Amino acid sequence: MRYIKDGAEIYRRSFATIRAEADLSALPEDVAGVMVRMIHACGMTDLPAETRYSADVVAAARAALQDGAPIICDAKMVASGVTRSRLPAANEVLCFLDQPEVADLARNLSTTRSAAAVELWRDRLDGAVVAIGNAPTTLFHLLDRLDDGWPRPAAILGLPVGFIGAAESKEELSRNPRGTPFLTLLGRRGGSAMAVAALNAVADARE
Amino acid sequence: MRYIKDGAEIYRRSFATIRAEADLSALPEDVAGVMVRMIHACGMTDLPAETRYSADVVAAARAALQDGAPIICDAKMVASGVTRSRLPAANEVLCFLDQPEVADLARNLSTTRSAAAVELWRDRLDGAVVAIGNAPTTLFHLLDRLDDGWPRPAAILGLPVGFIGAAESKEELSRNPRGTPFLTLLGRRGGSAMAVAALNAVADARE
Repeated sequence: MRYIKDGAEIYRRSFATIRAEADLSALPEDVAGVMVRMIHACGMTDLPAETRYSADVVAAARAALQDGAPIICDAKMVASGVTRSRLPAANEVLCFLDQPEVADLARNLSTTRSAAAVELWRDRLDGAVVAIGNAPTTLFHLLDRLDDGWPRPAAILGLPVGFIGAAESKEELSRNPRGTPFLTLLGRRGGSAMAVAALNAVADARE
Repeated sequence: MRYIKDGAEIYRRSFATIRAEADLSALPEDVAGVMVRMIHACGMTDLPAETRYSADVVAAARAALQDGAPIICDAKMVASGVTRSRLPAANEVLCFLDQPEVADLARNLSTTRSAAAVELWRDRLDGAVVAIGNAPTTLFHLLDRLDDGWPRPAAILGLPVGFIGAAESKEELSRNPRGTPFLTLLGRRGGSAMAVAALNAVADARE
């Protein structure tokens, strides 16, 4: 069959199509760059209208990574999607969901495992870049702990997906990010591929 | 903050919302079950209209997995998202993209690494379940090799995403699946989360 086989050309045409079709005009240039990669990961050019962010989110996350900050992911799929060659300081990519104590924590706190795993983030949270692409309860629990006075991450890429709590948790992040730079997508859409795309984009400005 | 913290209740309400909103009426019951999980993974209830499948795809893939067939994934993110506890026979989950010979194969075949990796699938392809959630060139290359007479997989879950080749490769799969049971989503949408959801659904009928 005939199709384009040149990877660089596929990237070039993909990003050109996205920039031709998506309305990025309201976004700062660095946020637009992140948006292009998020659109690339999901095939939908209508993300910008639903995106919310603090203007400093890309600069803050990128500076943190350049300083060696760890990346904290809510799900193994997110952690596995991070392109290691884009990381500026061989940054650690952490996911605590499979730690043996998570099941007990979830029972004791009467919450999901995804939320309970946040309890194990505390010692690494100060200045970290957080990428959430799965469970709304992870984002809710993190925001609750920030209200409790926990250390501040450098940035939150908050992109949980789904039908119960996703829209609400992202609305809360966008309404009151607790002084933390953030990027989110309102509504039900989100997911691990989108969170990975956002993380890979803030890690390295190259398209 | 107040939000639902009971994981089982979140699942129950999520799937009830999906079944209330999505039009699954045209789908066989087992394909509808796969669709519910795909919708759950992306937050969009409008997938059914763009879905194409062979009526036997879920039965064929499920039977193959119960018989111990391997799962071949195009990307590490897909492989990492497979829920091992849902697999009926502790099936192998394979991804060849990072094998050292892939770069040379890509150069020699003048194609992408994602397509070149398919060359390493040959010995494991007979009766396998294939899950493609990233590169259209992977799906194109696989279809070309099936035309060359390569061994038939048990099923192809063909869900590459993007702007260059995604729609075309999935249209080709749906038009002529080369006698292989398949499931795909027309157009640009797809991705690793959707491929994982489809795979996890065919692996185990439990919602």
